[in-house]
Amino acid sequence: MNTLWFITSNRGKFQEASRKLVECKIKVVQKNLGYPEIQANSLEDVARFGVECLQDKVDQPFFLEDAGLFIESLHGFPGVYSSYVYNTIGLQGILALLKKTPTSERTACFRSVIAYKEPKESSQYFIGECSGRITLEERGSQGFGYDPLFIPQDNSRTFAEMHTEEKNQYSHRGRSLSQLALFLQERK
Amino acid sequence: MNTLWFITSNRGKFQEASRKLVECKIKVVQKNLGYPEIQANSLEDVARFGVECLQDKVDQPFFLEDAGLFIESLHGFPGVYSSYVYNTIGLQGILALLKKTPTSERTACFRSVIAYKEPKESSQYFIGECSGRITLEERGSQGFGYDPLFIPQDNSRTFAEMHTEEKNQYSHRGRSLSQLALFLQERK
Repeated sequence: MNTLWFITSNRGKFQEASRKLVECKIKVVQKNLGYPEIQANSLEDVARFGVECLQDKVDQPFFLEDAGLFIESLHGFPGVYSSYVYNTIGLQGILALLKKTPTSERTACFRSVIAYKEPKESSQYFIGECSGRITLEERGSQGFGYDPLFIPQDNSRTFAEMHTEEKNQYSHRGRSLSQLALFLQERK
Repeated sequence: MNTLWFITSNRGKFQEASRKLVECKIKVVQKNLGYPEIQANSLEDVARFGVECLQDKVDQPFFLEDAGLFIESLHGFPGVYSSYVYNTIGLQGILALLKKTPTSERTACFRSVIAYKEPKESSQYFIGECSGRITLEERGSQGFGYDPLFIPQDNSRTFAEMHTEEKNQYSHRGRSLSQLALFLQERK
């Protein structure tokens, strides 16, 4: 079984990736190496800079992932800074910003970008998206982060009202991981 | 007259620094070299990373500056990401987040950090702060950014209701520049 490093400090992300990639006989190993995340307008730019910082230090195939919630009527806010915004103004802050915004205009998108790098090869990017809308109040207690505010398209429940397995069918990270898995299988 | 590079793309900041440092016979030259700004909790960390990226490329004394507005009741938001937040949710977004916050709890602080570096010397950091409070609505048309929302301590008008010269007496950037000027004069 091949081994692939996932550079992350987030245990939950690591477990999700492990479960996904074991299906194509790849063993994911979590490495908490740390890398600078830049201020940028896109997840791709953040991931690209991270890869550039790591590629001279890591001597074998690795990947990293960055994700965010992009709310259309707020010009993409909180986007690349979703984690910081969650830790400062929180879910109630997001609801306050959307107080006057009707349901029809509360569209949002969860995005995940995976950057994959092998020594001496160009890096590859895999993007996963999940469209949906922001609720009028917090709903549900499962998941984490913005899950209580986000209802995926063609659904009536928030991510926080779903079991992990159901959520992962729609999830942005599930989708970027699927693309990575497909890429790795085709290379064999 | 000695020459000092200011690494910035912001013409307004450059002009402010020029006016300040010419008093101690230093000519400031604007260099738009670009450097990565990392996602961090403090302006100091952003500035430090910038200096580390630039120090191998710049062969003479230089400085850079980072600034932000830190609102106490929002746990320091928008802080290091002030520029991004201004461009997405804007002033009306800040007011929406503070809608239920009474005047006595609307304290905020503008902060500016200058990082100064000479070849073969450790970098020096100069911090300027301006305490004040956030208004209940936008007031005034001068200045830029968050100026229409910010009233400095012991004052009743916003930065946007003052002429530039008056504002600069209180301003966070004026204060960090004063410290840099003092440091440079003492070294002579």
